[in-house]
Amino acid sequence: MPKKKQSIVIIGAGNVATHLATAFKAANYTILQVYSRTEKNAIALAKKVNATYTNNIKHLSKDADMYIVALTDDAARMIVKKINVENKILLHTSGSLPMDMLNTSALNIGVIYPLQTLSKGKKVDVSTIPFCIEANNTKTLATLKQLTNAISKNVSVIDTKQRLALHVAAVFACNFTNHFYAIASDILKQHKINFKLIQPLIAETAEKIKYASPAEMQTGPAIRGDKKTIEAHLNFLKNEKYKTLYKIISKSIVAK
Amino acid sequence: MPKKKQSIVIIGAGNVATHLATAFKAANYTILQVYSRTEKNAIALAKKVNATYTNNIKHLSKDADMYIVALTDDAARMIVKKINVENKILLHTSGSLPMDMLNTSALNIGVIYPLQTLSKGKKVDVSTIPFCIEANNTKTLATLKQLTNAISKNVSVIDTKQRLALHVAAVFACNFTNHFYAIASDILKQHKINFKLIQPLIAETAEKIKYASPAEMQTGPAIRGDKKTIEAHLNFLKNEKYKTLYKIISKSIVAK
Repeated sequence: MPKKKQSIVIIGAGNVATHLATAFKAANYTILQVYSRTEKNAIALAKKVNATYTNNIKHLSKDADMYIVALTDDAARMIVKKINVENKILLHTSGSLPMDMLNTSALNIGVIYPLQTLSKGKKVDVSTIPFCIEANNTKTLATLKQLTNAISKNVSVIDTKQRLALHVAAVFACNFTNHFYAIASDILKQHKINFKLIQPLIAETAEKIKYASPAEMQTGPAIRGDKKTIEAHLNFLKNEKYKTLYKIISKSIVAK
Repeated sequence: MPKKKQSIVIIGAGNVATHLATAFKAANYTILQVYSRTEKNAIALAKKVNATYTNNIKHLSKDADMYIVALTDDAARMIVKKINVENKILLHTSGSLPMDMLNTSALNIGVIYPLQTLSKGKKVDVSTIPFCIEANNTKTLATLKQLTNAISKNVSVIDTKQRLALHVAAVFACNFTNHFYAIASDILKQHKINFKLIQPLIAETAEKIKYASPAEMQTGPAIRGDKKTIEAHLNFLKNEKYKTLYKIISKSIVAK
């Protein structure tokens, strides 16, 4: 008879918590309970995954095999001081927090970090999300492998320092990149041009780096040393903040 | 009987020239001649599209209906001083150069600007490239519509100022974005992590903005005001240039 799948308590009801709870439920794990400080959010997620809920951290169920803290880093730091799951498994999902911060709350600790940008209301295929996992002992690591393999085809064992490197890299490759999409969108709006017009460019830029390193794929006036175009662009940009960013990034491209 | 398709001289043999010449040839246009200052490049492209070639601008054929300058902006500025195509159509393909810079070389002028990042050796489906077109008279504009519609499903009439706005936006959304991919790749390399691990994140970041504006899709520590994570990232980054960029862009995200 196959071993019964572990039962899970989800601590959090935001984007990551929702995506994970839904995926684990679909993979036949039991979601025992959902905790959120905001009762409304706890209820909404609990309903989705057929779990009980609480908004009082003292009422956390004692009966689960695993406790997954899927909160912002600040909230996670606070919550782990308030819980004690003893010999159960306690996990967090953060890119930046060290695994060790869970030490005081549990014997068996680990991390399952989904390396993806998750927004509510934007569907994402969880099976394509890279999961970076870490644990403080081999038995727990084996459990985490099984857990993450049940929902994703892309699981890597990554230690705390590497995970931080990944998180910083992700800030450049995702958050900063998205900010530049927002600036581009703003510039186009000012000139009554539909943002859709540059979407194929954005898609191709993201696609190209599958075939060669980004450094090899660099195009544009800065890498060509095309000073006249850079000058024309700077003259065009009236927003001083955009002008400053344009100068700094162009300089950085030339330096690289 | 359908009107015979125009014959074209391609001035240039780089990425844009190669992609355009190949696409027009496939759409049954006649590529009469290829010019490149570098004979080797002229020969290579001419061979591909069954055209004659020259590396002497004085030997430009007089017999074509259209002359397409697909060079870097600097080279384009130089070359238009050296040619005179009289009542034929003269085009350039630049995002930044005004249409009027062709005034001195021809009566019928225009622009066909392919809004895409083109690298040699990376195939791209030309039919998906947005073409921004402009002309100095309605007859020429009609010809350019027909010309670009023959190779692309995405043609827009865009004036010189809007085109410059698009080009600046493209620098942010493509060139700067790619530079951040390169920085991410560098950070990962230093920590012996395969760049492939963040490729799903890059793909999803580019995908998301089809469903909501980039400003709405912004994620990460800066938009959350997560100072501790920002601090952890800055402590982690040893490269002073990356540290400076991280600070400036985070500030820009918060300000927005």
